[in-house]
Amino acid sequence: MENGDGNEGASAFHMPEWMQIQFADQKQEFNKRPTKIGRRSLSRSISQSSTDSYSSAASYTDSSDDETSPRDKQQKNSKGNSDFCVKNIKQAEFGRREIEIAEQEMPALMALRKRAQGEKPLAGAKIVGCTHITAQTAVLMETLGALGAQCRWAACNIYSTLNEVAAALAESGFPVFAWKGESEDDFWWCIDRCVNVEGWQPNMILDDGGDLTHWIYKKYPNMFKKIKGIVEESVTGVHRLYQLSKAGKLCVPAMNVNDSVTKQKFDNLYCCRESILDGLKRTTDMMFGGKQVVVCGYGEVGKGCCAALKAMGSIVYVTEIDPICALQACMDGFRLVKLNEVIRQVDIVITCTGNKNVVTREHLDRMKNSCIVCNMGHSNTEIDVASLRTPELTWERVRSQVDHVIWPDGKRIILLAEGRLLNLSCSTVPTFVLSITATTQALALIELYNAPEGRYKQDVYLLPKKMDEYVASLHLPTFDAHLTELTDEQAKYLGLNKNGPFKPNYYRY
Amino acid sequence: MENGDGNEGASAFHMPEWMQIQFADQKQEFNKRPTKIGRRSLSRSISQSSTDSYSSAASYTDSSDDETSPRDKQQKNSKGNSDFCVKNIKQAEFGRREIEIAEQEMPALMALRKRAQGEKPLAGAKIVGCTHITAQTAVLMETLGALGAQCRWAACNIYSTLNEVAAALAESGFPVFAWKGESEDDFWWCIDRCVNVEGWQPNMILDDGGDLTHWIYKKYPNMFKKIKGIVEESVTGVHRLYQLSKAGKLCVPAMNVNDSVTKQKFDNLYCCRESILDGLKRTTDMMFGGKQVVVCGYGEVGKGCCAALKAMGSIVYVTEIDPICALQACMDGFRLVKLNEVIRQVDIVITCTGNKNVVTREHLDRMKNSCIVCNMGHSNTEIDVASLRTPELTWERVRSQVDHVIWPDGKRIILLAEGRLLNLSCSTVPTFVLSITATTQALALIELYNAPEGRYKQDVYLLPKKMDEYVASLHLPTFDAHLTELTDEQAKYLGLNKNGPFKPNYYRY
Amino acid sequence: MENGDGNEGASAFHMPEWMQIQFADQKQEFNKRPTKIGRRSLSRSISQSSTDSYSSAASYTDSSDDETSPRDKQQKNSKGNSDFCVKNIKQAEFGRREIEIAEQEMPALMALRKRAQGEKPLAGAKIVGCTHITAQTAVLMETLGALGAQCRWAACNIYSTLNEVAAALAESGFPVFAWKGESEDDFWWCIDRCVNVEGWQPNMILDDGGDLTHWIYKKYPNMFKKIKGIVEESVTGVHRLYQLSKAGKLCVPAMNVNDSVTKQKFDNLYCCRESILDGLKRTTDMMFGGKQVVVCGYGEVGKGCCAALKAMGSIVYVTEIDPICALQACMDGFRLVKLNEVIRQVDIVITCTGNKNVVTREHLDRMKNSCIVCNMGHSNTEIDVASLRTPELTWERVRSQVDHVIWPDGKRIILLAEGRLLNLSCSTVPTFVLSITATTQALALIELYNAPEGRYKQDVYLLPKKMDEYVASLHLPTFDAHLTELTDEQAKYLGLNKNGPFKPNYYRY
Amino acid sequence: MENGDGNEGASAFHMPEWMQIQFADQKQEFNKRPTKIGRRSLSRSISQSSTDSYSSAASYTDSSDDETSPRDKQQKNSKGNSDFCVKNIKQAEFGRREIEIAEQEMPALMALRKRAQGEKPLAGAKIVGCTHITAQTAVLMETLGALGAQCRWAACNIYSTLNEVAAALAESGFPVFAWKGESEDDFWWCIDRCVNVEGWQPNMILDDGGDLTHWIYKKYPNMFKKIKGIVEESVTGVHRLYQLSKAGKLCVPAMNVNDSVTKQKFDNLYCCRESILDGLKRTTDMMFGGKQVVVCGYGEVGKGCCAALKAMGSIVYVTEIDPICALQACMDGFRLVKLNEVIRQVDIVITCTGNKNVVTREHLDRMKNSCIVCNMGHSNTEIDVASLRTPELTWERVRSQVDHVIWPDGKRIILLAEGRLLNLSCSTVPTFVLSITATTQALALIELYNAPEGRYKQDVYLLPKKMDEYVASLHLPTFDAHLTELTDEQAKYLGLNKNGPFKPNYYRY
Repeated sequence: MENGDGNEGASAFHMPEWMQIQFADQKQEFNKRPTKIGRRSLSRSISQSSTDSYSSAASYTDSSDDETSPRDKQQKNSKGNSDFCVKNIKQAEFGRREIEIAEQEMPALMALRKRAQGEKPLAGAKIVGCTHITAQTAVLMETLGALGAQCRWAACNIYSTLNEVAAALAESGFPVFAWKGESEDDFWWCIDRCVNVEGWQPNMILDDGGDLTHWIYKKYPNMFKKIKGIVEESVTGVHRLYQLSKAGKLCVPAMNVNDSVTKQKFDNLYCCRESILDGLKRTTDMMFGGKQVVVCGYGEVGKGCCAALKAMGSIVYVTEIDPICALQACMDGFRLVKLNEVIRQVDIVITCTGNKNVVTREHLDRMKNSCIVCNMGHSNTEIDVASLRTPELTWERVRSQVDHVIWPDGKRIILLAEGRLLNLSCSTVPTFVLSITATTQALALIELYNAPEGRYKQDVYLLPKKMDEYVASLHLPTFDAHLTELTDEQAKYLGLNKNGPFKPNYYRY
Repeated sequence: MENGDGNEGASAFHMPEWMQIQFADQKQEFNKRPTKIGRRSLSRSISQSSTDSYSSAASYTDSSDDETSPRDKQQKNSKGNSDFCVKNIKQAEFGRREIEIAEQEMPALMALRKRAQGEKPLAGAKIVGCTHITAQTAVLMETLGALGAQCRWAACNIYSTLNEVAAALAESGFPVFAWKGESEDDFWWCIDRCVNVEGWQPNMILDDGGDLTHWIYKKYPNMFKKIKGIVEESVTGVHRLYQLSKAGKLCVPAMNVNDSVTKQKFDNLYCCRESILDGLKRTTDMMFGGKQVVVCGYGEVGKGCCAALKAMGSIVYVTEIDPICALQACMDGFRLVKLNEVIRQVDIVITCTGNKNVVTREHLDRMKNSCIVCNMGHSNTEIDVASLRTPELTWERVRSQVDHVIWPDGKRIILLAEGRLLNLSCSTVPTFVLSITATTQALALIELYNAPEGRYKQDVYLLPKKMDEYVASLHLPTFDAHLTELTDEQAKYLGLNKNGPFKPNYYRY
Repeated sequence: MENGDGNEGASAFHMPEWMQIQFADQKQEFNKRPTKIGRRSLSRSISQSSTDSYSSAASYTDSSDDETSPRDKQQKNSKGNSDFCVKNIKQAEFGRREIEIAEQEMPALMALRKRAQGEKPLAGAKIVGCTHITAQTAVLMETLGALGAQCRWAACNIYSTLNEVAAALAESGFPVFAWKGESEDDFWWCIDRCVNVEGWQPNMILDDGGDLTHWIYKKYPNMFKKIKGIVEESVTGVHRLYQLSKAGKLCVPAMNVNDSVTKQKFDNLYCCRESILDGLKRTTDMMFGGKQVVVCGYGEVGKGCCAALKAMGSIVYVTEIDPICALQACMDGFRLVKLNEVIRQVDIVITCTGNKNVVTREHLDRMKNSCIVCNMGHSNTEIDVASLRTPELTWERVRSQVDHVIWPDGKRIILLAEGRLLNLSCSTVPTFVLSITATTQALALIELYNAPEGRYKQDVYLLPKKMDEYVASLHLPTFDAHLTELTDEQAKYLGLNKNGPFKPNYYRY
Repeated sequence: MENGDGNEGASAFHMPEWMQIQFADQKQEFNKRPTKIGRRSLSRSISQSSTDSYSSAASYTDSSDDETSPRDKQQKNSKGNSDFCVKNIKQAEFGRREIEIAEQEMPALMALRKRAQGEKPLAGAKIVGCTHITAQTAVLMETLGALGAQCRWAACNIYSTLNEVAAALAESGFPVFAWKGESEDDFWWCIDRCVNVEGWQPNMILDDGGDLTHWIYKKYPNMFKKIKGIVEESVTGVHRLYQLSKAGKLCVPAMNVNDSVTKQKFDNLYCCRESILDGLKRTTDMMFGGKQVVVCGYGEVGKGCCAALKAMGSIVYVTEIDPICALQACMDGFRLVKLNEVIRQVDIVITCTGNKNVVTREHLDRMKNSCIVCNMGHSNTEIDVASLRTPELTWERVRSQVDHVIWPDGKRIILLAEGRLLNLSCSTVPTFVLSITATTQALALIELYNAPEGRYKQDVYLLPKKMDEYVASLHLPTFDAHLTELTDEQAKYLGLNKNGPFKPNYYRY
């Protein structure tokens, strides 16, 4: 879900040094891990995204709950089962409703349940998972269950769990160990409870961030003997897997689902095209028409931002380091400039590079009064926010996620989300985008679990193109879209299988 | 501010019967006036729009204030003046800050202050006003003061007053009579306090909705002898003035500022192009890409909605009754259909017609599950919401402004703002749009006040085109836009004055 | 057809001095009339537009025809009729095919034939016409005939007649007096032959440019006693009528069809949106992507040009003198500049102002090498082409309609159509646009002919809105567009007649 | 230049059977090679594209030249050199002017001359080339010369040679063997004269179509010992190379420049976005607004066509076989249908699939009257034109490249370019696009020639990404585009070299 990380501008595929984490010092890593912090800060917005489904306010009012740690409570679900640890099992009903609404917007998973149910392609699979616990995740988990898998689950983030959803899953018999507001100790305890079970040993891992994988590597390395594969969604987690692979330490096949085509396009281009408008509107109520905007970086995210703002009547400038992307910007009708050329005149600065210090203090000093600065790209590195925390500048929090930074001469710049990701902090991720991701994960699990011996080695793989195409095809009915089928004659002419894959791996879409 | 009323679809210029109110029965009118109710329901969103300027939460926290009626309080400002009635004079400082921020986004009024200040074009003017009391209004009032006018002011809506702003105005010496949550009796009492003053008699009226005008007609008809003119902003108020004029009862010139070009384009086309996206996102978090949408009505509001949604990747159908607008829709790339043709397949239905019962129960019955229905057009008449309040349908409030209406078979339609105006209920009006309106009002006052004897008779007038152009020109610097001037030779060639007006009245822009 | 004249930028409605022609000196007028020359130069392209219908090459090969003047030939059609004068009656068959193809693309006139045929609304009408003689005009004439009218016709332009079409009309029994390449004397002789007939006197005039009207005024003023009205299409002709009206010399009602809504939108916005691309491509084969363009004037034509080029990936700047249009440009996402600010950097300069000397020699001196300069606005006044005809500059004709003007230092600017209208010189007018105009003319004739005594006085009128709407409605079936009808209840609510008109006259569309 | 071939729809990368040609039977191949025929038929339009540079008419008037075969003429250039064979050496001056104009629009090659001239990176290179001989090719050849290479050149197409340009090259001392209208025997004779020279042996091959490569394989296989590499531009030629490679017969490294990113985007997306409009307008003069269009295939070409038509106000439907591309179409706002669903209602059918028989006789039978059918995709296979050549249908050629096919009931469909590529047959290729290709070729030659031993083996390679980026960067100055450079700190953070490459090979742009 960390957009920008993946595909943006130059940084896209080269991990910065701070990501090159050694497993040696786990404790330290936990504390200084900026990506992790980045993701935590967005947990609220991810849970907000469950409101995508028009959740009743009631489901969010657990803030006044009792303060007893879930670890200290004795809870059972209605069937007497107590193999779980959630905030309050009594919230199950609220959570169930959330899940039901999410189901309506995740038709691909529901279709998968139906199509694959007869044959139970995950029969015998024992999946341990560590992801955000939201209604959408619940739909994924229950789909995996319907396909034959047993699942145990922890949260990949200490703030992002929706307690009601966790309760509903527990009530349905899923061993879930997660609540909103875990301590660091809780976090690892929950993961351990998923893995370290009497008489049950996982044979598949679904991870988001790599913490679960790391824990097993560190504590239960022998488990890998029975594990058929790892499916990893996040940039960070994928990076760790590539590092393990390079170091020759990866002992099972792993699937990088972050870089599959369909997921990438939705996470970046399509999602950001909408969320840039949403994020700016919700925070500033500004009018887009006639505004001058500079977008730094013309990768997928930048392309989405530029297209949306141009369509709303903004005048958009682009900066780029890559001449090919730069030429694309030209052909799409954007003036390609250096940031310095336009910094004095623009009303909005948006970063989508994946790089660091793209907007420096010097730039900030030269911006005009009321200039809005925000980041759509990567983590919180793109704007040098630290440079603004100096005595001569006054910070004024004017709204949630909106700060005025005031210069001695009275000039204000409007900083959104303190330089963190605008789209995750100030807008929501549509369920449809999450559906793409969840379906990709489900298919990756099925593929790895059922792959014949030898198809996958101890390496990191992309999702096979045919399955990538299948993810897409499962989402077409949402748009009442009708695919054409090749005739036999045409398939022969093209040298293609009628069911795909339809493109070579290097096809650029 | 009631968009759609003015320019939409067919209804645009023909008032429905329920607007054809007799002044005879004032009490009754107050109770049954749907427009008024419509406007009241949007008061919150108008006051929200002041957060356009990133107001601190603090300024909205007066809900826990004491419950004493302002009419029963004895308050003085710091100069000992007590000719006002506001909630709490001590909130003046908060309000001042709001006003200062609004000033930054209303450069046209600030420029007007500077340009016209030397000559004080409103010296001697005694203006009584009745409008929403917001930071933007305050900027207008203080501009009028700077131009030489004396002002007394009441609120045109019992809910829309920002108490802090009212306090700030009172502190600055403006006799303001308004607070949030007035009773109907309070409402008329406040108006009366503005008008019925010992030793002061208004010579100009600035009205929004016609209540002030009505009150003077009813209670102090003799005052019109000294009144040089009325400036009216709202559709409703303008309609009343035309009725008075037709009936031969209008006894002073009136300026209809609602229909000036610049204001219309911003209230309808430009504002709605953005607010349709904002309103839908804030309420439903939906994704626009690939969605099928039908927009009923291709007037200015419809054009704005269609352009925005098309740009975001929606597939848009249009319905129209007017063949010229219909042909425009065709040339702009929209399929022109009857609602029945697409009602089963669309994901969103948006009304912008100004008409009534455009979406009927029959249509609602045929919509597919999860179809979103909302109104951008006029009041609350376009969708037959009443037809949904029947026993067999269940209503579920899932969020503020979002209801699920559930059919016996489980089908849900998602109704936004109960069929009231989405853009006013679920998004905010940018200060820039309000700036256009306020500047238009200020210029209309200047024109009427300074017009030589005989230029205006006892009739309703549009703002002279030259002043309409002036409003536009005052807003160009915001965009760093540089106007070209005609040479003498060119002006002669074109038969134009170099300073405008540049177009005949019938020019369509 | 002279777009830009009508609705562009500032000049739109104020006639330049050279148009203010006195009828006293007819001879002189004919010689110096720039508009006329402008129109002549475009005659070829108008006749090209008949190739819109994929005419066979054969129909244009009459260049090798005999050189005998048609006035000296004795020709009869197959029925023995000789009341016509065309180039060669034998070409009738080719012309008939052209007409048949045009009929397919003018469904509105064909529908009109069907709908009105029963009642023959023009029964008894004797129409004398003076227009371009093209296949589209023939469809109009035969429609008028089908509706009951008798017609006699001359050409309004000495070059624009399609001889085959004239022959086909003569063959069908229409008294047509026109050929391509008339002398001035021929021109007036043809007109006279239409009017001055034994035993036949016109009671309606259909004019394009005002020459026919002028001739009758000058030679046969008594004819006006029987004439029920004049329908005039061109800017020039309309201007003359307004002058006559002002001078109190207009002795019959006249209908200005040039300014009807539907026609204006198609002649300007919709047509130019496509022809700017077409004209530039056909002359220069340039690529639009990434090009910097300045468009002078943001009226309907400018709006069309800007929208098209922006969509093709050009970076577009706009100049304007009118602040309202300027603000529209801003809100549509174009930087508003003075020409001098961008003249050194742009790749293309396009004028759409209706003004004169918008592009001066000074501007031309500062343009960069290979800059393309063209005019979409008005006549040939906008670019100061005369200033380029100086000894130090070399002109090089590199293609039809394309000149390189070469500075001493080798810099070339690329001037299209010698500054005349690009869209008429270098692209074609789609039949659909001509259909709109012809239908408007037909309805105006019907209206004037059938209007009850007293509806129209000796003045110039716009087409009644209801008929304007009818023109639009007749063109909707082309797009398979389905209009919605008001219910009785809705019509009552809106205070409208169910059949229109649907808007007040000042509605801006 | 055969767009669609490369990247379209499904077929993109799988060669149809008829391309799988054996070298055994050369004669036969020459006769039945459809691609070759396809390319020949487009030769005229490629040579037209040189008019891109506003060529004087003179340069095309050699049709009346003497009919003596150039092979039978004795010609010398002004320096007495006779090592060439062109139509008429006296036309050199005309050709030189064409070349000079092309130079102005190929700034990248000119910059390359300057930048690389000092070091002469091609010093010692002996390049034999076989390409279209146009002004743009001449700029490439003279650039290669300026970089130190010796060149000998033949035409890859018997019709596409511009004789004046060939003359100009001969006059400058380039041994060129090519003229317009070669016989097949001439074709191979010319190639042989390039290769088979006393005392000169090529060490580099630049080929377009593979004929030169084939000739050397067949006649002079020993030459490959000295040859450092082959650069091949066309789909067909590239396919042959891959076949040779698979068969283990490729004996030198080869560079596939057809699939470099920059070239692909310009040949397909950017070029077709403009040429679809141009091709339709030039052939039919149709209006795009409101037209219903179905585009078959949503690869790069389809994306370009759809975007352009949508922007012009057409209503666009898309068909696809690949679910990922289908989902992209949905998110871009196009209804995804099967062709049968819309075939009765659309006004235009455009194929961009690379597939065969996408439009069948059955589809053609169901189209409505006046439906336009054209192909932007691949060769002439997409529309089953053969099925229309039956006795019951009448063909009528109404214009160059435009046929009406008439059904017995009178229905006409309008077939463009007999189903061959519209963009090559009916519009021109901008010089800028050709500049991208030529620069790519030059860089590929430099790379292969200078690559250290062992970098390239006997295989087919894509242009290294860094050089692909360099091609792009050389074209940025055309747009006055300013690239941003990474700081050292940023480069380190990203793990990138400051000079690129900036993306991994699988990046999708």
